[in-house]
Amino acid sequence: MNGLVSLVGAGPGDPELLTVKAARRLDQAEVVFHDALVSPEVLALAHRAWRVPVGKRAGKKEVSQDDIHRLLVRTARRGRRVVRLKGGDPFVLGRGGEEALALAEAGVPFEVVPGVSSALAAPALANVPVTHRGLASGFVVVSGHAETAWRPLLDALPPSSVTVVVLMGVAARARIATALLARGWPAATPAAALFGASTPEAQGWFGDLAALAREPATPGTGAPGCLCIGPVVGVAATLARLKGRARDEAGSSAR
Amino acid sequence: MNGLVSLVGAGPGDPELLTVKAARRLDQAEVVFHDALVSPEVLALAHRAWRVPVGKRAGKKEVSQDDIHRLLVRTARRGRRVVRLKGGDPFVLGRGGEEALALAEAGVPFEVVPGVSSALAAPALANVPVTHRGLASGFVVVSGHAETAWRPLLDALPPSSVTVVVLMGVAARARIATALLARGWPAATPAAALFGASTPEAQGWFGDLAALAREPATPGTGAPGCLCIGPVVGVAATLARLKGRARDEAGSSAR
Repeated sequence: MNGLVSLVGAGPGDPELLTVKAARRLDQAEVVFHDALVSPEVLALAHRAWRVPVGKRAGKKEVSQDDIHRLLVRTARRGRRVVRLKGGDPFVLGRGGEEALALAEAGVPFEVVPGVSSALAAPALANVPVTHRGLASGFVVVSGHAETAWRPLLDALPPSSVTVVVLMGVAARARIATALLARGWPAATPAAALFGASTPEAQGWFGDLAALAREPATPGTGAPGCLCIGPVVGVAATLARLKGRARDEAGSSAR
Repeated sequence: MNGLVSLVGAGPGDPELLTVKAARRLDQAEVVFHDALVSPEVLALAHRAWRVPVGKRAGKKEVSQDDIHRLLVRTARRGRRVVRLKGGDPFVLGRGGEEALALAEAGVPFEVVPGVSSALAAPALANVPVTHRGLASGFVVVSGHAETAWRPLLDALPPSSVTVVVLMGVAARARIATALLARGWPAATPAAALFGASTPEAQGWFGDLAALAREPATPGTGAPGCLCIGPVVGVAATLARLKGRARDEAGSSAR
């Protein structure tokens, strides 16, 4: 394993949602280069490693992408067991592909350890299935970071044809909702803004496209939030109602 | 934990790609209701459980969805620790949402344990990043099972705007490629058909949209394959070329 770089997905935050392989790689790592958003509980698993933060926080880059490439290559060439740890999955909006290319270019062996992406885990843990019979047979995941990234795709999507997940999408929530409304999506389409999925700080805002277009105050915790838009978001409300009813019935039968 | 139903994602096949939480739930389970495609290595982790196959194979349903709901509810009410184990992620084309609704309706407590979806892991393990700077800032995942599921979406996607992943899409590969070509996607757009991701039987076909439209023979292993289409698929070829060059150089310097 020496001299190998593992591009590892850290999952959404809860260390229990690491893969078994990711946990093992962290346990064995000698050096971990990690993003700012990887949770302290996950990092603690790299108990013997030198842990180097190389992520950006609130848009501010601490270390350039080229510098990250140089650090990975140099450390691997010293024969270290290197983990490059990224939130979620390393190949979903994580620039893992660029790092793989830089390593291959330098002749450094690497592997990819997929992780649970927040794009799926954030909705799932809020009881939103991204696909659901009769509601959606597919989903799109797009970055909300730059308007050029999401607008061509969202302007093209037929209304309610698919579930829309926008990572880092909360800042642009009003513009995204307005784009979908202009495309003909119904104003009552359920929508959610989800923060801190799988962590003790998890919070969510639930409403509809019309409300999202008015740029509602959302909880947020400094962490980038994820938007989820489409009829499937309504499943969470149905589940909450059914659970409430079950609790009420249990309460009245106990009296 | 007694009487709780855990809707658990089994990941793409390799037991190392289970989450830590999923492995723990299997270890503790008393009854596991599992899909046909969950690997034997993963099932073996449920060492003390009664393991009940309820999946469909090659389109043939063994147990109806309503029967699955009844089995889950009845077993949980007997106070058992129940795991409902699905390939990939329980909320991605897995009817997990329907099962959650049936459990809530019956007043049975449940939890969702997200898993690594094959939609992301199959490309990643074939060295295809579903997003990549300058190539794709988003992706769509859709079922290839029924044409009504994928056609409205794929007919609407602007050429090369996004990476297209079609789960269970290999049977419809020619029709899907033809639809994208008709929409204006370039014939040379890289495409891959991936089978058995993360298992020892993993195989892939790589080509372009024009070739895919001619319904090429693909490896396959009886397992449903995943199509991946878009400029990002070309990253895998670049990585293979760079790795080959590094090997050649290592070979010639050793002489």
